[in-house]
Amino acid sequence: MFVKDEIVKWVREWFDANGSGCNAVIGLSGGKDSSIAAALCVAALGKDRVVGVLMPNGDEGADDADAVELADFLRIRRYIINIRKANDDILEQMATNGINPLRQTTFNLPARLRMASLYAVSQSLNGRVVNTCNLSENWVGYSTRYGDDAGDFSPFSDLTVGEVKQIGGALGLPRKFTDKVPADGLSGKTDEDSFGFSYETLDKYIRTGVCGDAAAKSKIDTLHQKNRFKLEPMSKFKMTEENK
Amino acid sequence: MFVKDEIVKWVREWFDANGSGCNAVIGLSGGKDSSIAAALCVAALGKDRVVGVLMPNGDEGADDADAVELADFLRIRRYIINIRKANDDILEQMATNGINPLRQTTFNLPARLRMASLYAVSQSLNGRVVNTCNLSENWVGYSTRYGDDAGDFSPFSDLTVGEVKQIGGALGLPRKFTDKVPADGLSGKTDEDSFGFSYETLDKYIRTGVCGDAAAKSKIDTLHQKNRFKLEPMSKFKMTEENK
Repeated sequence: MFVKDEIVKWVREWFDANGSGCNAVIGLSGGKDSSIAAALCVAALGKDRVVGVLMPNGDEGADDADAVELADFLRIRRYIINIRKANDDILEQMATNGINPLRQTTFNLPARLRMASLYAVSQSLNGRVVNTCNLSENWVGYSTRYGDDAGDFSPFSDLTVGEVKQIGGALGLPRKFTDKVPADGLSGKTDEDSFGFSYETLDKYIRTGVCGDAAAKSKIDTLHQKNRFKLEPMSKFKMTEENK
Repeated sequence: MFVKDEIVKWVREWFDANGSGCNAVIGLSGGKDSSIAAALCVAALGKDRVVGVLMPNGDEGADDADAVELADFLRIRRYIINIRKANDDILEQMATNGINPLRQTTFNLPARLRMASLYAVSQSLNGRVVNTCNLSENWVGYSTRYGDDAGDFSPFSDLTVGEVKQIGGALGLPRKFTDKVPADGLSGKTDEDSFGFSYETLDKYIRTGVCGDAAAKSKIDTLHQKNRFKLEPMSKFKMTEENK
């Protein structure tokens, strides 16, 4: 069976087991992962059971326009929850407390507020939240813990970026949705610029264990090592048998 | 070694391995779990490396006064981030979208906004977030996924409520902090009223497998079954060896 068909089947079976009749709720960023995940859910559940949620932080931009276009293309319902006020208010209160947010916090706080908003929408619409992280991003820790790495089910976390794109093509999505250059939408840089290596290099390294470029290999290994805690369960103190 | 000493050692070692010199950041609800967790971290790391964050939703109440008292008793730094505006704004936008929040959402959204706020503070103060869930609450799913069940390390998730209270006593916390009746602070009910069984009954059932009260046993088993997904990793589609 083609991978695309296997994932469609898996999504269908997951819903049968974990929320028969529920809706798939997806945060639509305008990027390829959420676009392809939305198309996948439409293939698995039908367009009436897929809900897209746009969550801009302030003014809507080109990415939001892409998300709207995608939702219209798939003919799914879409909602907009703007996280700007929530984000600004929490940052303002931190300032009042004399706490200076790190630059990294200005990326992670919005990701977590989006998660909170997405779950609020999902819970109120009989939904299940789609995690749209892929293996390549997870490999180098390119996600926010308890933010975009949250979700109820994850169709792509075992697929590299290249493999996710192929799924998009197999689902019949136009290339404008599947081939969009990955960028965080915050720093003004593409992901590949930020990393200093290409997704193609990363994907090949993940799948073959071979990386022709020594500098890229070293960067990937450092990021992987530093971020692997995100993929592991939270550390927990364990009682011994004698203590119980 | 006493359990208290084992946990103190475990917290110290966890920080040595995962953030040497970092601070423990705790959301202080005024309840026993966060109070005892704060006292534990003070015992493990010293008061200067423990930060309490109060996160009321609107007006500060009796629970917040208790949290302030606890922070003063332990002589730890404390901050206040009020999540009211963030919470109200997201609910308002849901209404604008025609989405009616479930009653359950009015509990879960604040829990997730607190997580987002706590992580923003922690990240900006070189912190690690303490998860304060205990085994008894987790057993029956009494937590919000990606909300209060988030965190970087979890000292109490393998201890029943009764065992956590004993740790509080062993740490020298006054009974007013360790014996406070658990309540969600939202419904106006105590946890035990909401459940329909006592923590004593639940703790005994967890530790011995025996529950004298058939009605309580049935309620506990139903909640446990229904909520165990919260304690399991997110469902993920797995590639087969052939597909890779």
